[in-house]
Amino acid sequence: MGNMVIEVSYALDTFYFLMCTALVMWMAAGFAMLEAGLVRGKNTVEILNKNALLYGIACFVYLLVGYNVMYPGDPISAYIPGIDFLLGADNATDAVVAGGDDAPYYSTMADFIFQAVFAAATMSIVSGAVAERMRLWPFLVFAVVMVAVIYPVEGYWKWGGGFLDQLGFQDFAGSVVVHMAGASAALAAVLMVGPRKGRYGKNGEVRAIPGANLPLATLGMFILWMGWFGFNGGSELKIANVEEANAVAKIFVNTNAAAATGMIAAALLARALFGKTDLTMTINGALAGLVAITAEPLAPSAGMASLIGAIGGVVVVFSVLALDKLKIDDPVGAISVHGSAGIWGIFAVLISNDDATFFGQLTGMVCTFLWMFCATLVTLWIIKKVMGLRVSEEEELEGMDMHECGMHAYPEFGQETKS
Amino acid sequence: MGNMVIEVSYALDTFYFLMCTALVMWMAAGFAMLEAGLVRGKNTVEILNKNALLYGIACFVYLLVGYNVMYPGDPISAYIPGIDFLLGADNATDAVVAGGDDAPYYSTMADFIFQAVFAAATMSIVSGAVAERMRLWPFLVFAVVMVAVIYPVEGYWKWGGGFLDQLGFQDFAGSVVVHMAGASAALAAVLMVGPRKGRYGKNGEVRAIPGANLPLATLGMFILWMGWFGFNGGSELKIANVEEANAVAKIFVNTNAAAATGMIAAALLARALFGKTDLTMTINGALAGLVAITAEPLAPSAGMASLIGAIGGVVVVFSVLALDKLKIDDPVGAISVHGSAGIWGIFAVLISNDDATFFGQLTGMVCTFLWMFCATLVTLWIIKKVMGLRVSEEEELEGMDMHECGMHAYPEFGQETKS
Amino acid sequence: MGNMVIEVSYALDTFYFLMCTALVMWMAAGFAMLEAGLVRGKNTVEILNKNALLYGIACFVYLLVGYNVMYPGDPISAYIPGIDFLLGADNATDAVVAGGDDAPYYSTMADFIFQAVFAAATMSIVSGAVAERMRLWPFLVFAVVMVAVIYPVEGYWKWGGGFLDQLGFQDFAGSVVVHMAGASAALAAVLMVGPRKGRYGKNGEVRAIPGANLPLATLGMFILWMGWFGFNGGSELKIANVEEANAVAKIFVNTNAAAATGMIAAALLARALFGKTDLTMTINGALAGLVAITAEPLAPSAGMASLIGAIGGVVVVFSVLALDKLKIDDPVGAISVHGSAGIWGIFAVLISNDDATFFGQLTGMVCTFLWMFCATLVTLWIIKKVMGLRVSEEEELEGMDMHECGMHAYPEFGQETKS
Repeated sequence: MGNMVIEVSYALDTFYFLMCTALVMWMAAGFAMLEAGLVRGKNTVEILNKNALLYGIACFVYLLVGYNVMYPGDPISAYIPGIDFLLGADNATDAVVAGGDDAPYYSTMADFIFQAVFAAATMSIVSGAVAERMRLWPFLVFAVVMVAVIYPVEGYWKWGGGFLDQLGFQDFAGSVVVHMAGASAALAAVLMVGPRKGRYGKNGEVRAIPGANLPLATLGMFILWMGWFGFNGGSELKIANVEEANAVAKIFVNTNAAAATGMIAAALLARALFGKTDLTMTINGALAGLVAITAEPLAPSAGMASLIGAIGGVVVVFSVLALDKLKIDDPVGAISVHGSAGIWGIFAVLISNDDATFFGQLTGMVCTFLWMFCATLVTLWIIKKVMGLRVSEEEELEGMDMHECGMHAYPEFGQETKS
Repeated sequence: MGNMVIEVSYALDTFYFLMCTALVMWMAAGFAMLEAGLVRGKNTVEILNKNALLYGIACFVYLLVGYNVMYPGDPISAYIPGIDFLLGADNATDAVVAGGDDAPYYSTMADFIFQAVFAAATMSIVSGAVAERMRLWPFLVFAVVMVAVIYPVEGYWKWGGGFLDQLGFQDFAGSVVVHMAGASAALAAVLMVGPRKGRYGKNGEVRAIPGANLPLATLGMFILWMGWFGFNGGSELKIANVEEANAVAKIFVNTNAAAATGMIAAALLARALFGKTDLTMTINGALAGLVAITAEPLAPSAGMASLIGAIGGVVVVFSVLALDKLKIDDPVGAISVHGSAGIWGIFAVLISNDDATFFGQLTGMVCTFLWMFCATLVTLWIIKKVMGLRVSEEEELEGMDMHECGMHAYPEFGQETKS
Repeated sequence: MGNMVIEVSYALDTFYFLMCTALVMWMAAGFAMLEAGLVRGKNTVEILNKNALLYGIACFVYLLVGYNVMYPGDPISAYIPGIDFLLGADNATDAVVAGGDDAPYYSTMADFIFQAVFAAATMSIVSGAVAERMRLWPFLVFAVVMVAVIYPVEGYWKWGGGFLDQLGFQDFAGSVVVHMAGASAALAAVLMVGPRKGRYGKNGEVRAIPGANLPLATLGMFILWMGWFGFNGGSELKIANVEEANAVAKIFVNTNAAAATGMIAAALLARALFGKTDLTMTINGALAGLVAITAEPLAPSAGMASLIGAIGGVVVVFSVLALDKLKIDDPVGAISVHGSAGIWGIFAVLISNDDATFFGQLTGMVCTFLWMFCATLVTLWIIKKVMGLRVSEEEELEGMDMHECGMHAYPEFGQETKS
């Protein structure tokens, strides 16, 4: 019977992983809806294609290369992972029931797919920032490089046991490893492709370019929120005893609390600043709260998690305004949500996790930023030379959908008659 | 090994709770989509803001106050709960493996968050009923009071061990405690804010005000249906043995059956009455079936659950028509779905649950209604004096979105040119 | 303690089944959104009604009749199942803990509802193919017959232990039993109702009839993808030991991989053929990958699953083009996605599953096709005589929504002014 308990425990941990995977996979839909809602109708089919295809490419490329780069059997150094090309066999029952600290307690296949959907999430962050002007296939080629090499190298540094992990850098579910990393790549990409035509006037004014479908964007927020239970909750990696079950439950509570207060804080601040309750700030506030708590959703009390989320909500509003001052055009606010709130999150770890040091957090943040930013710049520079990055002025004016995809997102809703 | 089984059992019960929590949280998206689909385009951003922010506020306020009011360590009486302000520590492994009837079998954190999403659901019911004319921030202030005090007091009466529980009132997952309670508050709110301009003509005619986006409303129904598996299934509170697992499975079957027949009955009835298969009745029929079975999803056979759901679907159609006769303007049918079907559900318990008495069910229903209705009236009366409740006539005509939120939900779809 | 382990194992298997059920139920929303996005605005309410009501009818009718036909206690022969009309009692604790190969390891109620949502999925496939011209209630009457008799007979042949099972026909989660079966019925229905007016010109040209809301269709794809984790993952029927947990994890990996490559392959092929990245091909490619892997998501390696999915994506593009050459009008591509890719999937089993034979797979495919196609033809012929199948020319021109349902899906978005 002892073996049977161990087997059931293994099955529960694996099942928990798989359910969390389904929730994180669902975040791909969240990003797709969020971004489709926040762009104009004429660029909607293209952003849907980007989000769908990047998810597919991320899963495939991470399977082929990325996973083995990030978790190499035989790394070259703490800076450069090794490369392997196959998923190994799954754990044998013997090894599981043998017990001991090294005994595997969940399926490696489950681990792989949980990691794969994280890679996809990182890539999803980029698509929103370059929406409405970066061409589809150059973006997808970048996705291949990103998921094959750029993200796995950085992920290896922390989660694969590389130098950031050895340095004591603390990032529970990836405020930096996933979110700020994605935002760093997004920032590089936005600087490469430039702002949308008409976004910034000659006299420094910022012209609003409203999204076409705000219910979709709100749906995207709810999907992401739901998916984040899997994102953070699954990052505990184990649930099958009292302590771990309590930990996962606390992560659910803190994740939800931070999202709630991030949303409230951003909405109140927007109301105070603009006199209107800007729904896009409500949405991005919730997401910023989620990003902020992601670096450490376990150690803080629920009250502290609420505070961390609320500050994330404040950060995102000011970040959105600041980026527009700098003429960095990010149609969905991805850089602010995942970057600025991610940076806040990584330092907020210092409040509640005694293992974290300021130096460790700073090093992790800076190294990740530099790597993601520079590697993206170089990659996009090459892609630009070979394929070009940006649609023509005419295509941008007429919308990417007809040019890139041959169809309208809403052919009957009258937007095709507008410029 | 004995301890390990108990730990795995605890982990499974906790995980089950957390998955059900994720499903109930998802209902917030369901309410948001349902309501956004059933209002006009000009009031869509505002209802999205309401739904998102009320969820955030509910989670935060329930964490701060509501949970401790509803489940007090030290109640004042069976009518008035005590007040505490902190989530306690989670269960120690020792206490869990000690065994005995009092040993905790799931994480208290998981219990908290499962309860929190119920509080949010109660509040979501109100937002739809007052859509298109109640201002955003007065509504949100009401949400604070509702989740801090009004709902927890009533919840304490039944689920916290208060006088309704002692009286034998039976309400498994909250046909009355959640749904009719929310509908009672909604009714009070609707009476306070009055009907939308133009809804009722001088000669008693009811003018249809069609919702702007019926696919969204349908999506909302599906989300709510899915989430209800967590709502009812999680209310069994335990799954980790044969009897409990069978119980949860039966609850899934009955919940699904009642929704199915509620939908079919309402669609057939609408077809018979109006000559058309009114999609809003299809949607509300499914929801009414769900509400009706919520009071007792375990005891009835699947056949009986189908009957209970079908009657719920009939009730909702006639209730919608009756409320319009009374000039009670409820744009999404929330009072009918959650109130009328909830009342049917609470008495339907008598069919299959021998522990229920007519007197107990009646008392629970009446006391809950009176408390929710009166407490809401008083709270809204105060808010009205301080902040006002209803938008101006001009704002109502032009739409709340531009006035309250500064943006259109669908700026390109041509609805902004319409009155 | 031994008994307790067995009980926890039973509970975990049951819970896994129920979570998979929730995911497959969610596919009903996926079909609804996919189809609502791909039809014209004037026929959207009707397709939403169809999808919602068919799900309700499928669940109710499968409860009343279908389940007992498909899994009869006392079959008449390997070709004709017996008929029973009640769900039995659930498993007693005694029987579970008694152990032995025959001891039940999950709730029969959970098994029932998991099977019920499969029946609904089969029916959902038909609704898309006959969209925009088949009347609502004749369709729903067909749904009753389909779920009561047509599908369960065919399901009995394989999953109920009938002659196809005895013959060695291998179909893990239903590439043929569910998907190609649904597509065969859809093909018969499409031939009965004929193409939409204006779809095919006199000179053989195919006129594009664009869907009204592509973000909805994309959402539908993501929902179906997510739900497929439950569809395939749940079809393993057990998770509570190391081997089974590994199997479920591998099924998740392979299901996701095939969807990813199906999508990529279809998008690349569409880009090559049409010069545009057709979003509907991206969507249908992912679904085709999912359908293709469904016949055997466990045996192949992840690399092989990727290849099977990719070929599915290629198959669906050519199938869509071929059907239009044949003037078989399928507005959402359901016959290609579920039929053509399903046929590829059933033969792809031969690559990795040694128990499969070409003769067995061919027999299963042909018998299923013939039964579903002919039974549908006969049923629809009778319904046509009694009720009629197709809307009038005037109704088709003006849209089914006002005629059948009395409302517009998007009353403010300007589509009502178009023909």
